[in-house]
Amino acid sequence: MKKVRIVVWGLGAMGSGMAKALLARPGVEIVGAIDRHEGRMGRPLGQVLGIDGPDINIEADPQTIIVEGSADLAIIATASFTTEVYQQLEMAAKAKMNIITIAEEMAFPAAQQPELAKQLDQLAKENNVTILGTGINPGFVLDTLIIAMTGVCLEVESIKAVRINDLSPFGPTVMHTQGVGTTPEEFAQGVDAGTIVGHVGFPESMEMIAAALGWKLDSIEQTKEPIVSTVYRETPHVTVQPGMVAGCKHIANGKINGKTVITLEHPQQVRPELEEVETGDYIYVTGTPGINLSIKPEIPGGIGTMAMAINMIPQVLQAGPGLKTMKDLPIPAAVLGDIRDLLTQE
Amino acid sequence: MKKVRIVVWGLGAMGSGMAKALLARPGVEIVGAIDRHEGRMGRPLGQVLGIDGPDINIEADPQTIIVEGSADLAIIATASFTTEVYQQLEMAAKAKMNIITIAEEMAFPAAQQPELAKQLDQLAKENNVTILGTGINPGFVLDTLIIAMTGVCLEVESIKAVRINDLSPFGPTVMHTQGVGTTPEEFAQGVDAGTIVGHVGFPESMEMIAAALGWKLDSIEQTKEPIVSTVYRETPHVTVQPGMVAGCKHIANGKINGKTVITLEHPQQVRPELEEVETGDYIYVTGTPGINLSIKPEIPGGIGTMAMAINMIPQVLQAGPGLKTMKDLPIPAAVLGDIRDLLTQE
Repeated sequence: MKKVRIVVWGLGAMGSGMAKALLARPGVEIVGAIDRHEGRMGRPLGQVLGIDGPDINIEADPQTIIVEGSADLAIIATASFTTEVYQQLEMAAKAKMNIITIAEEMAFPAAQQPELAKQLDQLAKENNVTILGTGINPGFVLDTLIIAMTGVCLEVESIKAVRINDLSPFGPTVMHTQGVGTTPEEFAQGVDAGTIVGHVGFPESMEMIAAALGWKLDSIEQTKEPIVSTVYRETPHVTVQPGMVAGCKHIANGKINGKTVITLEHPQQVRPELEEVETGDYIYVTGTPGINLSIKPEIPGGIGTMAMAINMIPQVLQAGPGLKTMKDLPIPAAVLGDIRDLLTQE
Repeated sequence: MKKVRIVVWGLGAMGSGMAKALLARPGVEIVGAIDRHEGRMGRPLGQVLGIDGPDINIEADPQTIIVEGSADLAIIATASFTTEVYQQLEMAAKAKMNIITIAEEMAFPAAQQPELAKQLDQLAKENNVTILGTGINPGFVLDTLIIAMTGVCLEVESIKAVRINDLSPFGPTVMHTQGVGTTPEEFAQGVDAGTIVGHVGFPESMEMIAAALGWKLDSIEQTKEPIVSTVYRETPHVTVQPGMVAGCKHIANGKINGKTVITLEHPQQVRPELEEVETGDYIYVTGTPGINLSIKPEIPGGIGTMAMAINMIPQVLQAGPGLKTMKDLPIPAAVLGDIRDLLTQE
């Protein structure tokens, strides 16, 4: 059986990490790499990754790489929103490539882009390929894992989940989009202006949970509150004085008939330990039985997203054609051996 | 769309609970019930369940119920071992019924009955039905959930999981099979004689994890140790003096090249709180990243098993034909609305 041929589209932190992880595995090969970033395009892939890589150059023009018959699967790690990646998805699907993307909205595109979701489903079916959006969040912690946990319940009254993480490793862009280092007034203005965005993915996680459980949400309300620090906090990229904002507490409430049935909270801040905030992923189900689940510390976002995308390759290659979400496919699993062994089991 | 027609085969504690839960749901109907127990056979189902039930009698003879065209799915809750349920599975499959069974070994029958597993797969395919074994353990806590959690890992070095539960609600049979109330000497004799069995399902959970991750286990070693109480413990069915056995600590180690890669522990005892033992489900993955997951208290075994079996109905009805395990099907989810809405989504 030939190796699984993969194109990696987008070689930022996530794309590069996935490329490295793929190159370390038997059974797969990277047959193409696309990135139009100045520092990466035209250079050998291995050089950009800092490893002995395969003998291929990173191309700026996808037309030379996304060619029918050249690859079994494309991993697309270029942007967060469905509208941003739609053309890339279309191009790869038309070239008969299965697709895994970490674009957050693609975890459940029907939530905010129902028309595009339908078109993608049709495109995938016309070209006999599978399209999946995944990642750690959305894609796992605040949706797939919650759904799986409700599998042990005879009744579910409501769900609350909280992901408390540490933004300290991240750079200036994340500090800006989360409002770290602002005053509470600047934070409020940033939220109003849309420059402080908080977490991308709540409607997607909410609607995935609802669809899996057979709920129809009437509304999803989101709030972004400043996490005002009482202590001095510092990272290589930002300093936060007491009284300033250390992060964004983004909350979403999904309601049915005025009652909140799903609450998802994602407080993201730098140096949470300085105020004795313990990072972790927490899932509480009120139902029969109730569930009280903790993961401490939280599953790291970067590695987790890369792993989810790579580990879902066998499921995507074996799924029927169409746009799929994590709730539609067999459970994820770490792919540790030759991926081809998993493909030939069935 | 017609209601999903279900036969419930076996109306012990689990079967009765599932029947009640099914009768409370829209979109499904119980069209047949089978049990040859003296107190149940021949009686109206509702009377045995203690509710206003459907107008059907519990039949002792499966031949009158397991008839082609009469049901879409059979739930089989009669026994623990593959050899015990094989003929029932065969009969239901030949009657073109999809099957969900909570027989523990059927969670991954290839582990101990590879030939029967092959035959069941062939039977299922010949009759275009799906056969699934599930439950809380094996079926979820110590296998499916572990596998799903490894989906966030780029590397997995080893896995340890512990399920600490409370046997206090159970009756004399469970007390005997777990050795509760024996002396340490009697416990050792009971283990040797096979009367103290501990947990049924470790080889199944181990092999399901290994298959999902692409590992080949060289050996699975099991030990059953007495949990010797230092305090007096009492339930309605048993008393345990200090120095006597309060339960069975059953441990399984799965090895590759002499190294333990999977450790599953299931200490089961009465009144664990009297020695400040906190019940819970715990999963630890040593890998990239490491995972430290807790569910406190543990997911209750009875409700959890009933829920898993019922909640997997949509996945089983929509799966391709064959013998499936939890790792092969989409993630479980609580079925809260009309099950038919979930079936028509695709």
